[in-house]
Parts: sequence; C-alpha cells; structure tokens
Amino acid sequence: MYLSRGGYEVAVLDGFQKRRWEAQIGVQPLAPIHPLQERVRIWKRETGKNIRVFVGDLAHERFTARVFEQWKPDAIIHYGEQPSAPFSMMGNEKAVETQVNNVAGNLNVLFAMKRSVPTAHLIKLGTMGEYGTPNIDIEEGWLDIEHKGRKDRVLMPKKPGSFYHLSKVHDSHNCEFVCRVWNLRITDLNQGVVYGIETDETQIHEELNTSFHYDEVFGTALNRFCVQAAAGLPITPYGSGGQKRGFLNIRDTIQCVELALSNPPLSGEFRVFNQFTEVFSIRELASTVAAAAKEIGVTAKVEHIINPRIEEEEHYYNPVLTHLPSLGLKPHKLSDTLVKSMLSYIKRHSDRIDPDTIAPRVKWEGYV
Amino acid sequence: MYLSRGGYEVAVLDGFQKRRWEAQIGVQPLAPIHPLQERVRIWKRETGKNIRVFVGDLAHERFTARVFEQWKPDAIIHYGEQPSAPFSMMGNEKAVETQVNNVAGNLNVLFAMKRSVPTAHLIKLGTMGEYGTPNIDIEEGWLDIEHKGRKDRVLMPKKPGSFYHLSKVHDSHNCEFVCRVWNLRITDLNQGVVYGIETDETQIHEELNTSFHYDEVFGTALNRFCVQAAAGLPITPYGSGGQKRGFLNIRDTIQCVELALSNPPLSGEFRVFNQFTEVFSIRELASTVAAAAKEIGVTAKVEHIINPRIEEEEHYYNPVLTHLPSLGLKPHKLSDTLVKSMLSYIKRHSDRIDPDTIAPRVKWEGYV
Repeated sequence: MYLSRGGYEVAVLDGFQKRRWEAQIGVQPLAPIHPLQERVRIWKRETGKNIRVFVGDLAHERFTARVFEQWKPDAIIHYGEQPSAPFSMMGNEKAVETQVNNVAGNLNVLFAMKRSVPTAHLIKLGTMGEYGTPNIDIEEGWLDIEHKGRKDRVLMPKKPGSFYHLSKVHDSHNCEFVCRVWNLRITDLNQGVVYGIETDETQIHEELNTSFHYDEVFGTALNRFCVQAAAGLPITPYGSGGQKRGFLNIRDTIQCVELALSNPPLSGEFRVFNQFTEVFSIRELASTVAAAAKEIGVTAKVEHIINPRIEEEEHYYNPVLTHLPSLGLKPHKLSDTLVKSMLSYIKRHSDRIDPDTIAPRVKWEGYV
Repeated sequence: MYLSRGGYEVAVLDGFQKRRWEAQIGVQPLAPIHPLQERVRIWKRETGKNIRVFVGDLAHERFTARVFEQWKPDAIIHYGEQPSAPFSMMGNEKAVETQVNNVAGNLNVLFAMKRSVPTAHLIKLGTMGEYGTPNIDIEEGWLDIEHKGRKDRVLMPKKPGSFYHLSKVHDSHNCEFVCRVWNLRITDLNQGVVYGIETDETQIHEELNTSFHYDEVFGTALNRFCVQAAAGLPITPYGSGGQKRGFLNIRDTIQCVELALSNPPLSGEFRVFNQFTEVFSIRELASTVAAAAKEIGVTAKVEHIINPRIEEEEHYYNPVLTHLPSLGLKPHKLSDTLVKSMLSYIKRHSDRIDPDTIAPRVKWEGYV
C-alpha cells in the first residue's frame, strides 16, 4: 500500500499458506484480515490506485515463472515465506515444510529473475536471527577477515536458533551464489523483530489493517506482552529475559524496504543490510510495556517463565548498523506513546483475544 | 561391504533415485550395477555375512522414522543424497529437486535420530566444495576468529559453487543446530573428489563392483580423464585447469568413514573433518593420466576446453588436514600404478563407453 501510494505499480503474489498454518494450530490475528481481493477493491476506492493480484504458490515453479514472464517486475520484494520459529520447531513435518517451502519458493524466484528479468533487484527478507548471538560484533552480511596472515571477504558466519532461521540462512547462501554466477542483484534485509500495528496506509480504512499476531507461534515478543497487559494477564518473558535482539517499528520496516528499492545494488552484488533501529533485552521490553500500561491505569505483573527455547539468555550482542542509516533511515524509536497506542488498539479488539494461545507449548527440546 | 566384513551389523537404505536421474539424462555406470538385493545375496554366499535392506526414500518422513525405530542403529553413515553439481545446474526443476531431496532427507534423519537413537553417531557426507576457493586456509569446519578485539569459534564461512554444493552447506547448518540444541553427535565428512574403482570387497566377486561414472554429470575429473584416454579421446580439462581440489582414493574414503565411526564425537559435538589426501590442479591430473596412458602404449592428447562452470581457475587453495591423519589415516596416494590399473579396468569394459556423454553440455550460465 505504501509503495502503491508512492507511485509504484504494484502486484501482489500470495498463496495464502499462512491462513492454512494459522488454522492448523488454531490461532488468528487480533483483528480479522479481509480477503485480499476485497482489500484491493477498498484500496482502489480510497486512493484510486490499482494493485494487481496473482494468486498462487511461489514454490510452484510454473506459477512463479509465468508471473515474472508476464509482469516483468523491476524489483521484487520477497516476503513470501513461513515466518515463525516456533512453527518450524513443532516437529519433523513442520520443520521440513518450513525449509522446503522457503528454500524452494526462493529458488523459483531466483530462476524466474534469471529467465525474465535478470537486471531486476530482489529485496529478500532475511532475519537478524540468522546470526544467532556470536561473541563478536555482527557485521552486515560480509566480514573482512584476516587469518594466518592472509585476507578475504567472507559471508558473516551464522548460528541460527531454529529450523525457520536456518531456512533463511539457506536462502542467503543461495542468493549469494546467484549474484556470483548469474550477476543478479540482491539486497538481503536481515530484519530484527518488528513491533507495532498501524501505518499511514492502514489508517485510511479499518479493513486495511495488518495481520497482528499475539499468539506463541506467530506473535513477536512486544506484541505478545502488550496483549498480555491489555488482557490483564501477567507479562511472561522467557527465562531470565536477558536475550537481546534488534527491534524496529513496522513503519521503519517499510521505510527500509523503500530505501533499499531506491538505492539498488550493482549487478552481481549480494548486499546485506542489518535492519533494526534499537537493541533491547526481552526483560527491558517487559518493563517498558508494564510501565506504559501503568500510565493508562492497567497493572501488569512481569512473570518470568521457563524458556521453551534453547538459546543463550545472557550474552554479548552488538550488531552493526551503518548501511540503512547512511541511506537516510530515520527511526521511529520505541516510546511510551507507541506502546500506549498499541494497548488502546488492542483494547478495542479485546473480545477477540484468546488467552489460551499465548503460553508457549512449543518446546525446542520436546517436539520430534 | 567393508564394514560388514569387519564385523559390523549393517543395514542399507536406498530409494534408488539415482537410477531414475541417470535414466533422465541418459547415462549409466561403466560396468552394470546389479540389483541391490542380488548383490546382498552374492555377499552372503561369498562371505557368510548378512546385510539388511530397507527400500524407501529418506525424504519420506515415515519411512525414515520407521526404519530408525525398528533397526535402532548405533551409527548412521549418510550417503543418500543427489551427488552431482552439474545435475543441480540443469535448471530450475533439478536445482529445487536437489536441494529439497538432500535437505528434507537429512532433516528426516536428524528427527529420526532424536526420536529413536539420540545417542547414535551420524556420519554425514559433506564435500570440500562447500568451502569454495577462499583466499585463506580452509580450516576443518570451525574457525577460531578474532574480530575487533573479541574472540569466537564460528563455522568456517562457505562459498560453494553449485546448487548441489549449496545443499550440503544447508545440511551442515542444520546438523550444527541439532548438535547444539538436541545434543546429537555428528561428524560431517567434507570429502574431496573421489577417484578409483576397486576395493578389497569389490574384488571378491565381479558383480559387487562400484558405480563408476565417467559422464559429464556424475563422473569426476580423474575418472573422466581415464575413460577419455582409454577410449582414444583427448583429455579435456575445463578452462586453464588451474582449479585445485582435494582428492582421495576410494579406498581412503572407506578408511575415513571407519576412523570416524570408531572415534565418535562427544554428545552435542558437531565435528567436521576435511577428507582428502592430496591436492592437485586439474591440469596436473590431466598430465598424470596422459603419462600413465603413454606407459601402456596409449597416446592421449590434453585439450583444454571452455569451462562450462563459473569458478576461479587460478586461485589460492590450502585446506587444512589434521583430524583424520591424527586418527591414523594412511593414504593411498595417487600413483601411475593406480592410474594404469584404472585404465586396464576401463579397457575391459570399453564396449560400454558412450563418448557422447563426456563433453560438458550443462553450462553454469546457460540453463534456466
């Protein structure tokens, strides 16, 4: 919607796999998501802009090939992957489904580019979780290394924390390869954890809302904490809460994509951006939410629970962030005001909160 | 056969995918490979040893799960993957098939281990090709790194040269993860290019021969050069032939697997061995074969052809090799005698050489 409003001609490809995955595990976004075709009609009515819809599965080679052949995009923004770490840890079938879906879909995109639009720019959604929590600074994708007196520029080593995060590591390696051998141009956006609900475009019409998840599988930490506070439940960081991650506002996500889009890499360049605006520990987030809730008269207790994940809870974390700021990124930093506006949005939809979907049942150790 | 003779109780899992892939591209091994069940009967008759056969596809979750549940292996030697770089570069469908087959099959093995034999030892076939040709020494899987004054031990960065090699990189990351979170024990054998035909076991009966490929898709360089010489064709290194790789004799492959098997890693350890015995450039191999051929009265011309691959042809290459020698590896180095014995084996089967399958038609640039 943002790009459409900004004058880009936009097409959307969707196979609606996530609808099925949500149904399988029995969760839904806080506010209903209307059919895509309906939202596109509303968008047209409200703004006069067309968005083209292609319905199909990126993992189906011929579908992807045909859309690229027909539409001939100048740029591709690839968000079409299974996005949840806990989902990928729900056992053998879901681990395989996650990696096959993500890797095959992305390979089909790379081949369709090579075939129909070899000079187009692929903006690929990666994740900061690809890196894990190394004891060295997290460079942006590439690392200048000196070893035994010799030098090279290598991919930043990865130690991801779930089969989902691994699927993105696989994608990154596949992307680097096709830049090297086919001269494709790719920006891999290693994004932090996104929070927030509203953008300028979702505010145009209430049926244009984003998919806001608060459940243990598709919900991210800050969103989940806000729903817990709004529903009068304790805020439950996993373990000590010393886990640090990069975070960013949903508005900045869009800003970052546009910055990448209007500053494409060279032909043959595999460019990686770390994409976040601030680093917080999970326990800092929990206190921030509790404090903001208090200001609007809601008392929320912070209750640490056993960590269902296997991850370091106290660790060094220093990701580098230079590329996006140098292109002009202006962060919307996390503020009490933002959290309070999230709480008030959630309260408006509080009849749809299912508290049974929040507590973590997916355990990194347990499912096989 | 080697392990069975050595007193191990052995079961083989095979889905015979490679038979189908060979048929698809119209190639076959130099000497016919008899049905597995027949070879197992011959083995029993010749040695008195049983080898159990499970027929099925590792990429089918329930097949793999059931075999592990029933057989409960102490160790798993996982060679069950699509093994050819050119095959994986034959276009979209084959790239996806290679990565899906290899990644899903390996994930199913990891889950089956976790479920049924969590203390077993997985010996996973990787490849030296995972590393590519970096400008620094190639450490064995892990790299001790110092960066901006801080230290860590990270996975050796990878820059592989085909969708096949990438599939092995994906497997390695998945393996490292399950060691870390599930305490599995895995040895990743990053093997060089294997040459040679015979082992002590194949010599017991002629129908126990290995699958010897000389075609552009499944054949490796030295094997291909020997067949070219034996058939009176020019030996055709790709490009300048300055590409350096690690090589090893088929007998040493078996020796390395047994060394890994009898020296398992600790629980939770992801151990990587570089597995080769010598480094040669492709043009050195070509001269070695030409020289050996000359000694048996065959004149073979070396004719450099346009490189169908995209790879560096003149580069630094210094892979570290310490783990396997420290466990006792005694290399069978490449000798004129070995090459001459290969040439004489090939001459015995020369009626089956199809010269049309040798010239490279799979181009890294061309297929989409």
